[in-house]
Amino acid sequence: MSFLTSVLDHLKSFWTENLLPAAKTLIRKTRKEEPLRLPAPFTPDEDADTKQYEAHPSSAYMMLKMIFRDIGRYNAVIETLGRDFLTAMPKGAYKSRLGQIGFLHRRRHEEVANPQVAAFIEEAHAHEKSSPESWDEWDHANLREIEILYRHHCQVDPELIERRARLGYEGRRVHRDVMRNNDWDTARPFLEDMIDLTRRIAESKCLRDNEHDTESPYQALMREYIPGFRIADIETLFGQMTKKLDDLLPQILDKQAKEDAPIPLKGPFPETQQMWLNETLLRAIGFDFSRGGLYETGFNPVEGGTPEDTHLVIKSVNESNFLISMKSTLHEGGHGLYVQGLPRDVWRYQPVGHDMGNAWHESQALMIEMILGRRREFFEYLAPRVEGLFQKFGDPSMSAENLYKLKTRVRKTADRKTADEVTYFHHINLRFELERKLFSGALEVKDLPEAWDAQMDKTFGDMPESSCMGCLQDVHWFVGKFGYFPSYALGHMIAAQLYTVMRKDIQNIPELLSEGNLIPVRDWLNHKVHKQGRLRRPGALIEEITGGPLTPAPLLAHFEERYLHSV
Amino acid sequence: MSFLTSVLDHLKSFWTENLLPAAKTLIRKTRKEEPLRLPAPFTPDEDADTKQYEAHPSSAYMMLKMIFRDIGRYNAVIETLGRDFLTAMPKGAYKSRLGQIGFLHRRRHEEVANPQVAAFIEEAHAHEKSSPESWDEWDHANLREIEILYRHHCQVDPELIERRARLGYEGRRVHRDVMRNNDWDTARPFLEDMIDLTRRIAESKCLRDNEHDTESPYQALMREYIPGFRIADIETLFGQMTKKLDDLLPQILDKQAKEDAPIPLKGPFPETQQMWLNETLLRAIGFDFSRGGLYETGFNPVEGGTPEDTHLVIKSVNESNFLISMKSTLHEGGHGLYVQGLPRDVWRYQPVGHDMGNAWHESQALMIEMILGRRREFFEYLAPRVEGLFQKFGDPSMSAENLYKLKTRVRKTADRKTADEVTYFHHINLRFELERKLFSGALEVKDLPEAWDAQMDKTFGDMPESSCMGCLQDVHWFVGKFGYFPSYALGHMIAAQLYTVMRKDIQNIPELLSEGNLIPVRDWLNHKVHKQGRLRRPGALIEEITGGPLTPAPLLAHFEERYLHSV
Repeated sequence: MSFLTSVLDHLKSFWTENLLPAAKTLIRKTRKEEPLRLPAPFTPDEDADTKQYEAHPSSAYMMLKMIFRDIGRYNAVIETLGRDFLTAMPKGAYKSRLGQIGFLHRRRHEEVANPQVAAFIEEAHAHEKSSPESWDEWDHANLREIEILYRHHCQVDPELIERRARLGYEGRRVHRDVMRNNDWDTARPFLEDMIDLTRRIAESKCLRDNEHDTESPYQALMREYIPGFRIADIETLFGQMTKKLDDLLPQILDKQAKEDAPIPLKGPFPETQQMWLNETLLRAIGFDFSRGGLYETGFNPVEGGTPEDTHLVIKSVNESNFLISMKSTLHEGGHGLYVQGLPRDVWRYQPVGHDMGNAWHESQALMIEMILGRRREFFEYLAPRVEGLFQKFGDPSMSAENLYKLKTRVRKTADRKTADEVTYFHHINLRFELERKLFSGALEVKDLPEAWDAQMDKTFGDMPESSCMGCLQDVHWFVGKFGYFPSYALGHMIAAQLYTVMRKDIQNIPELLSEGNLIPVRDWLNHKVHKQGRLRRPGALIEEITGGPLTPAPLLAHFEERYLHSV
Repeated sequence: MSFLTSVLDHLKSFWTENLLPAAKTLIRKTRKEEPLRLPAPFTPDEDADTKQYEAHPSSAYMMLKMIFRDIGRYNAVIETLGRDFLTAMPKGAYKSRLGQIGFLHRRRHEEVANPQVAAFIEEAHAHEKSSPESWDEWDHANLREIEILYRHHCQVDPELIERRARLGYEGRRVHRDVMRNNDWDTARPFLEDMIDLTRRIAESKCLRDNEHDTESPYQALMREYIPGFRIADIETLFGQMTKKLDDLLPQILDKQAKEDAPIPLKGPFPETQQMWLNETLLRAIGFDFSRGGLYETGFNPVEGGTPEDTHLVIKSVNESNFLISMKSTLHEGGHGLYVQGLPRDVWRYQPVGHDMGNAWHESQALMIEMILGRRREFFEYLAPRVEGLFQKFGDPSMSAENLYKLKTRVRKTADRKTADEVTYFHHINLRFELERKLFSGALEVKDLPEAWDAQMDKTFGDMPESSCMGCLQDVHWFVGKFGYFPSYALGHMIAAQLYTVMRKDIQNIPELLSEGNLIPVRDWLNHKVHKQGRLRRPGALIEEITGGPLTPAPLLAHFEERYLHSV
């Protein structure tokens, strides 16, 4: 305790003597009117031995570390309000909560986008050059990510940010309601407003940021979700996927047509048992419930929060099919492992401690849900146990073989969320095409349902009418996430490519799965991906782990292996 | 919708043309370094027809309204985090949550305490004098309360505020834990730190605030909880209480000693049924569950939140006595009615829409819990129903008469929370005495347990040893609430004095209670107290409602009536 106290005293006097005067000077000499709210100094209850608080000779960099600690606190508060919004908030608080969430987004934005942050960044870069010996690779990366965040925010009017935050939360509820009633008349004007607002944000980002002055509004949006990927890269990767799938998919459908169809599950599968199963599987993959939770809500599944308070939200369970909530749980659980595995103990709230963006995030979810969670050995572990849990001894639909078949059956379907692993790509590609058209002006919202169905028909041939209007099925556009969808397909590719290395490093994955033990897998992912935070750029990380750039080849090989060559 | 849009447009252009330039001028001409974060302009989804957003010719006052709207949003967010802390937060988030809560307290404090707020207040006062026709009584009161809030914060270092917020939340957990183990060795250093910190806050408030330059640190603290009361006022009222109780208490004890003792309850009273009962009683008093909730936690009872999201927290129910959680529920429910009844629809987050301080808040809780909730007619309603609910048909301990006796039995006890209505005052008076000694320096924390027990003995004569160390029983000091305790005794007096008027206005209170209908009572309190917000000062409100200043006479008359004259 006295050691800690002396470290804290040291840090505090460093703060008072070196940093605060420097900060005040900078504030005085700036000509801009926007005020900078000084970050709080070291608080005695924080861990002084983290890199976040470690003294650094660049006082500008220290200021940035404290400013971004405070930004991180705003983030964490916003995440908690978000979980509460979905799980505990009384319905009468809806409107005022929107105001509070919007307000916090504004304040956070103002603190990131302050021009004095740019001055600190410039000064820190100068120090980086003049005293390279004081900067290790993590500090370099942290400053780089600070700058990226600053550039990301600096051109956007706080009012747009506040409005998007409000509208996004409204959208989550609007989506839940329009889905229930297949209500396009409510959805249409909402989506129009959301696209209009998002376009204004995109335009302020892409038109005025010198480093990206040639990018399209859609590219500017994509930067928020999938850093390190350009539209052209994605088009190339997606083109390769499409080409090879045109060859593979008919073969797979043909092979499966010759096999016996799986037996449908017979419910009921009571909610309590399903939620117990879901929590137990999360424990098996290593999710830490002392730092997070699983919540059943009426809302679309979503993950989020912080490494200390990670929330996995799934929709209401379906009592006629336990595989649906289990799928959601495994998917969100993969996200959850990533969130909980970030280098928070060392880097706390610093940008270098953030995740690698949504393509990487989805790779972690799809690794658990699809790559591993659809292996035959997993169902060998699961089948006898769910026979017991749901009191269905000897039910043939509950056999390992049948569960495996149910989860690997390839079908042309209108619904992304129940799509199989092979056709999943086409669902993503369709959304990627359409949202670019919405932003280029080639497609108007009023024509979206028709365009959607036409594209579906073009992709899959004559489609059965969907139970819910196709373009209403996803929450993403309702919460303003345009430019997000490619994450799923990229994430699937990343997962498959990572798996080629993981299977060499952990040679007994099949045995582990058949014992229901995914802890070694979690540890591998944690070591290779989660703990890396944003130390590397996304492209560099895949090279570092797998020895080459991202390609669709491993995913396509995985399809061949699982869907054509396995018995 | 188009009307609303035009109103919003009008407000927005007023904002842009008149207010922002005025604000920026003020910011430029100030010599202070502290930056002012401009409030957000009108957001389109807010209600434009509230007084909060109503245009006012004083641009400084408009600025203040927007600044205090944002302060109110911080408050609301802090309240939600607080509820989550007690109910849903995973335990691994404890430490980071303290940092987040402390940070938000700091930011809120900085926005209130900004010297430019003082400049706006000055300018608004000038307008108030020069154009009195533009100021109605609510606007006057709002500006007065804004100034009080500003003065309350302006002298205190944000660091102290941040530390107190963190320490207060730590204290809630420390208190829960030390209570479980009667652990004075952990409690003592914690209380020392808390008192030290609180004294520093008190001293900065009382020494540098010109309007109160003669006040003691304790008085400065009390101002936060019990505005409008001075120590001397309280000493006078408490002196009158003590004197009369010295006469009454022996008579009451004597009378009850001659009666048959009540029959103790025989459990178990299962948790589920108790919580159902508690929720049902809250509905009966008019608590609106669409704008709030009741939560069973391991923590000390507390109420809080906002009119849209009011949380009533009670400790874990005791399965051997349902009256314990019921008592907590009725008490917190009285608070809850006050929170939900504030003029939020009109004044939204403005200071004039706040409650009247804690003495008034406790009056609302004690009105429900004690004045009404211990009337015989209430138990006539309750008794047959709880016989059914708990499946105890014909159990004599469940009769209306016996429940009434259990709740009106006067005993000298060491425990405030289970104290009867008559001796309750002594428990409060003891704490009022001791906390003043802690702050004057006459008593050190290490001597607290002994001083506490000695004072107990002095008050009640030879006391049985308490199951938990006396001075550990309350959470208040652990969360830094020094100067709060007098609220309970003052609130009890206010409640009794209000009741003298209420019983004339609602002549069938006994019948209503025997039907389990407290809605007319809720409406009366709402009309007379809740909806008034802070329009009047506390002393003026009691005069307005009851025609005279606060005195202990109605409470003492109530004791005589219930405990000496009733059969």
